[in-house]
Amino acid sequence: MNLWFTEHEQETMRMSYKIKETLHKERSKFQDISIVDTYRFGRMMILDDVVQTTEKDEFIYHELMVHMPLFTHPNPEKVLVIGGGDGGCIREVLKHPSVKKAVLVEIDDRVVEVSKQFLPTISQGLDDPRVEVKIEDGINYVKETKNEYDVIIVDSTDPEGFSLTLFSDEFYKAIYSCLKEDGLFVSQTSSPFFRPEFLKETYERIGEIFPKTKLYVGNILTYFGVFSFSMGSKKYSPDDIEEIRNIPMETKFFNKDIYKAAFALPQYVKDIFK
Amino acid sequence: MNLWFTEHEQETMRMSYKIKETLHKERSKFQDISIVDTYRFGRMMILDDVVQTTEKDEFIYHELMVHMPLFTHPNPEKVLVIGGGDGGCIREVLKHPSVKKAVLVEIDDRVVEVSKQFLPTISQGLDDPRVEVKIEDGINYVKETKNEYDVIIVDSTDPEGFSLTLFSDEFYKAIYSCLKEDGLFVSQTSSPFFRPEFLKETYERIGEIFPKTKLYVGNILTYFGVFSFSMGSKKYSPDDIEEIRNIPMETKFFNKDIYKAAFALPQYVKDIFK
Repeated sequence: MNLWFTEHEQETMRMSYKIKETLHKERSKFQDISIVDTYRFGRMMILDDVVQTTEKDEFIYHELMVHMPLFTHPNPEKVLVIGGGDGGCIREVLKHPSVKKAVLVEIDDRVVEVSKQFLPTISQGLDDPRVEVKIEDGINYVKETKNEYDVIIVDSTDPEGFSLTLFSDEFYKAIYSCLKEDGLFVSQTSSPFFRPEFLKETYERIGEIFPKTKLYVGNILTYFGVFSFSMGSKKYSPDDIEEIRNIPMETKFFNKDIYKAAFALPQYVKDIFK
Repeated sequence: MNLWFTEHEQETMRMSYKIKETLHKERSKFQDISIVDTYRFGRMMILDDVVQTTEKDEFIYHELMVHMPLFTHPNPEKVLVIGGGDGGCIREVLKHPSVKKAVLVEIDDRVVEVSKQFLPTISQGLDDPRVEVKIEDGINYVKETKNEYDVIIVDSTDPEGFSLTLFSDEFYKAIYSCLKEDGLFVSQTSSPFFRPEFLKETYERIGEIFPKTKLYVGNILTYFGVFSFSMGSKKYSPDDIEEIRNIPMETKFFNKDIYKAAFALPQYVKDIFK
């Protein structure tokens, strides 16, 4: 059967994947969750018709989300991941020998369960004894938690619907309080090519709360190309790091050169902030 | 009318663009040439159903193709572009004050004429007095030309059909002889994600002829993401350059940070060569 899944980007572009079969679909309390097996990218998790992660290219996004902040912090022991119910970020966090505790706060328990069932290479860390999974709204969790984390990673879906609060001023203030006095956080801030205004507003919002901010970029084809990541930090800045400490884990995307290169912004991205 | 153009990537993935209208289509001696006006990327040139360039994102590819080698060479005066009949590379070459002469060798005169007619922002440099356009086979031209160029840029279509000779041992040997004694060249070498074996073979082929080689990467969504560029050089190496000279031209992608960052290879790209 000539079966394809298609994702639309703002109604004028679309990307399609030939699929072997649909392995799962359900409507959770929050969203449609599907797993399809694609010819090109292996298994793929789709939330509300948007590709969230695929077996073949998830390493790019997850390694950029996790290793950039965790190698900026000199000794990350306690790490919080908000969203990211697939477990990909948690898997990468656990690769850091310094990490003693990793907490995942995901609003939709079904994302976690479906990932455990169908995406074992991505969710594999979720049962690690250092990991605690909490099913609740990320914004409520960070509001109630003070001075607790070295690093917070906000692995949200696109800034639409119930995820919009994870880009708000209120949320970033709570993130600030939830971090230890030398803590830092990172959030995906969507595409600088397709959503430059959103990036500018969000990054500047973070800069009003955190004394140090830094932007980096990566490219994920299944997210329609270039993607931005915004870092807010109380103390440590990538600008002060000549070379990161040795990388003890195996990686498929990240390395010492990538750490520096990801902060090199194309001119049109720099110009967004002029 | 809900009109879309769709490009396939090896039959298991496809990218589609909503289009306002088809502005031109013809069958040249070598290929189908079309120009469509898209909602998202402006006008787009399509050769044999493969996107070649678009008004909105062509700057990424053309700036990476041209400024990386031209800022590696200390004083590029005479530059050859093979392929690239749309004129995008020539436009960028002409931005370098050191350039006295730029020659474009394109096999298909219709690509040049169609670009002049429909893509003026891309082809604008082709009538510059420093530019000479030759309609002939690139491999023949470089075989007949010795010790002539400071920099050669091979802006070919994908390694299929009549473009395959532009990735051959025979071609690279001719490129070597066509360059001055301190010359260097660059060629696009397709996607390290989708065609790792092709990249490995081609890069190693270049390394058998040129004493210095260097690989860099860029991401072009309309080319299905990550793209590689292979540099072969007789004398100058990016490794010897601490910081490039000042950039006198306006750019939309390239800058001093990008020059260094483009050489930072993701781990999976490094691992292709293990």
